[in-house]
Amino acid sequence: MNHEDWVRKELRALSKSLGFRYTPLEEIENRFTRIRTGMKKQKMDALLVVQKMNFYYLSGTTQDGLLFVPSEGKPLLMIKRELERSRVESPIQDIIALKSNREIPSLIEAHCGKLPNSLGLELDVLPVRDYFKFQELFPNTKFMDVSQILREIRKIKSHFEIDLMKKAGEIGKKVYLEAKTVLKEGMTEIEFGGLLEAAAKKYGHEGLLRVRSLNYEAYTWHVLSGLTGGIVSQSDSPMGGLGLSPAFPVGASLKVMSTHEPILVDFGTCFHGYQADETRMFSIGKMKKKFIDAYNACKEIHDAVLEETQSGADCEAIFMKTLRLAEKLGYKDSYLGPPGLQTRFIAHGIGMELNELPFIAHGQSYPLEKGMTFALEPKIVFPGEGSVGLENTVVVTENGYEILTPVSQEIFQV
Amino acid sequence: MNHEDWVRKELRALSKSLGFRYTPLEEIENRFTRIRTGMKKQKMDALLVVQKMNFYYLSGTTQDGLLFVPSEGKPLLMIKRELERSRVESPIQDIIALKSNREIPSLIEAHCGKLPNSLGLELDVLPVRDYFKFQELFPNTKFMDVSQILREIRKIKSHFEIDLMKKAGEIGKKVYLEAKTVLKEGMTEIEFGGLLEAAAKKYGHEGLLRVRSLNYEAYTWHVLSGLTGGIVSQSDSPMGGLGLSPAFPVGASLKVMSTHEPILVDFGTCFHGYQADETRMFSIGKMKKKFIDAYNACKEIHDAVLEETQSGADCEAIFMKTLRLAEKLGYKDSYLGPPGLQTRFIAHGIGMELNELPFIAHGQSYPLEKGMTFALEPKIVFPGEGSVGLENTVVVTENGYEILTPVSQEIFQV
Repeated sequence: MNHEDWVRKELRALSKSLGFRYTPLEEIENRFTRIRTGMKKQKMDALLVVQKMNFYYLSGTTQDGLLFVPSEGKPLLMIKRELERSRVESPIQDIIALKSNREIPSLIEAHCGKLPNSLGLELDVLPVRDYFKFQELFPNTKFMDVSQILREIRKIKSHFEIDLMKKAGEIGKKVYLEAKTVLKEGMTEIEFGGLLEAAAKKYGHEGLLRVRSLNYEAYTWHVLSGLTGGIVSQSDSPMGGLGLSPAFPVGASLKVMSTHEPILVDFGTCFHGYQADETRMFSIGKMKKKFIDAYNACKEIHDAVLEETQSGADCEAIFMKTLRLAEKLGYKDSYLGPPGLQTRFIAHGIGMELNELPFIAHGQSYPLEKGMTFALEPKIVFPGEGSVGLENTVVVTENGYEILTPVSQEIFQV
Repeated sequence: MNHEDWVRKELRALSKSLGFRYTPLEEIENRFTRIRTGMKKQKMDALLVVQKMNFYYLSGTTQDGLLFVPSEGKPLLMIKRELERSRVESPIQDIIALKSNREIPSLIEAHCGKLPNSLGLELDVLPVRDYFKFQELFPNTKFMDVSQILREIRKIKSHFEIDLMKKAGEIGKKVYLEAKTVLKEGMTEIEFGGLLEAAAKKYGHEGLLRVRSLNYEAYTWHVLSGLTGGIVSQSDSPMGGLGLSPAFPVGASLKVMSTHEPILVDFGTCFHGYQADETRMFSIGKMKKKFIDAYNACKEIHDAVLEETQSGADCEAIFMKTLRLAEKLGYKDSYLGPPGLQTRFIAHGIGMELNELPFIAHGQSYPLEKGMTFALEPKIVFPGEGSVGLENTVVVTENGYEILTPVSQEIFQV
């Protein structure tokens, strides 16, 4: 059978029967409306979207291609591979084949009747070599940076997006419940982490977490037990863990988990590109009192942030309040990492990427807004001993918040 | 306890007890010698390495930082996080703290006595925004692209590197042997894929595969059964599979695997950053004859490539030979994908990234060299029905080759 014919006739039904959800046209149109407001403010004639998550956000597909969005007129989706599949996945009307990037200007000219005078590109991630090639392709066009506009628009989630994050949170709940039956004495951290990810995939977790960065790599197997929980590594987190080698020096290791140690499980799940991030504590036998006390402090800080969480609250002010509370509770030198290595955020924005806006953090003075989503994660670290923490993914509502990760906050003791 | 003290006293012993291998000084020095030859040819005064895998290759650590390499004199490793750990992991002598990128020029000047007139950057992956910042930091320096030099040097693997790839291959062998006991009727593709990855991690697989690209994402759960094996997607591979959603439209899906279908498992493993990639076929009950015949054709093409594999053989000539052989065997319209969507390579270079040199491919006319490593993967695709394939990771030796993925090539029937 011909591949084109098979895709046209069968792909939609097969995908739907297995739970695929396609981004509706009105959802995409809302996003275009919002982005065009930002473009017009900066007098940007058009934008050319390359990076996969922005591309998915504005087209509904992650097939390989580029999306051209003029500030007036219809967007043009140019697809390298696979064209027919993109037509099933995207509600955009004008979808055409792109054999080589050299064709981009002529395809745009045929679509719009002219080339843009100014063109927005995602300069926060676009490689220099690709930028130089675009300069050759559009010699008379002025390039502008559209990264910040896209980042600002994506920080407010729609009902459609929040619903996908809730589904990710439901997968997470199943994983943590199953974890209690998986954890056994004598297991290594990475064995436990691998089995948790296997469980998550069984329930529809997509396996990859995404972060917007050249070098930062997201992963789910952040399982740290006892002293590995006290190790700081290259990641911007209170503790990185030991990892498996100098090439992957973060997350779970081949260390065997022992009784009475704090076992920290920071596990993200992903559904249709949307992520939920959460952390819970485990132990084999009862956890030592020092760590139970520290975990209760994390809960107190967590709840204090939620008390402040509503539209209009200032992100930096909330963060500074947690510093004072941590000090009052006796954790000044272990809150968010060891002295000299403490991180400066208590929550990171989350959606399709793990480092979206907002950050509840030092230096981030701006208000929370309805529809913002963040992962709130107070953690306490003792070098050479271990760490504890709690994390939930939260959406800001008009008068408060809703938690998208509905797992019990007890310490899971086996 | 102080984190610095703990790392200095305890990290090396803990890491070594759990199997960490550090890159030896002489290995790093050999790499510097080779890269300096390339730099001098291009009259490049120095290079500044940012991207994680190049950084690991030249420093032995993946802590967060930048590496400055002058064409003459000692390299300087500048570390943001975590400094003490990088001193355990890297054999480089001059390792200093970097608080902000703004300090880079003054640190380099203090180290070398001057700033370079020309500086190589990795323009194939470096984001434009970072490039602009470097232009501000080094207003009198000419920037050059060092990507190709690094790519050329990394394509020839040392004994140290090949040994790590062999270890990755040994993990793969354990995974495929365990897979026979894992695969059960009624399982979904993603459930099977998740359990394979859990098994791999238990044996030390690092969980992430790496590829040098803004948008391309590597993953291990490429498990395709029956008709999902006939689906082409955004990836540059003969078949992408259905995946879990429009946000992740490749690899295993929630489809239940049925009896007698071809089940293709393309699974990569990673040890200390070095990867081995392999594909084997599975079935529940006997696979249909059409697919067994096609698999035997894949084996014939695979073996024909190996017959040609030795130092000096031309990559494009080998690829063209496989096209003729596939046609002779009756698979002209299904070899490497369906008509119009066929890929143009039979092998991709592999090491720390899945798209290294060499490519045994159309348009890649250059000789194989001793120490090159590639993943050889003939595949045959029938839209609406399924696909078959075989893949092994191979190193080129003086007079031939060695296979680094020692799993039996039988069809694993359960």
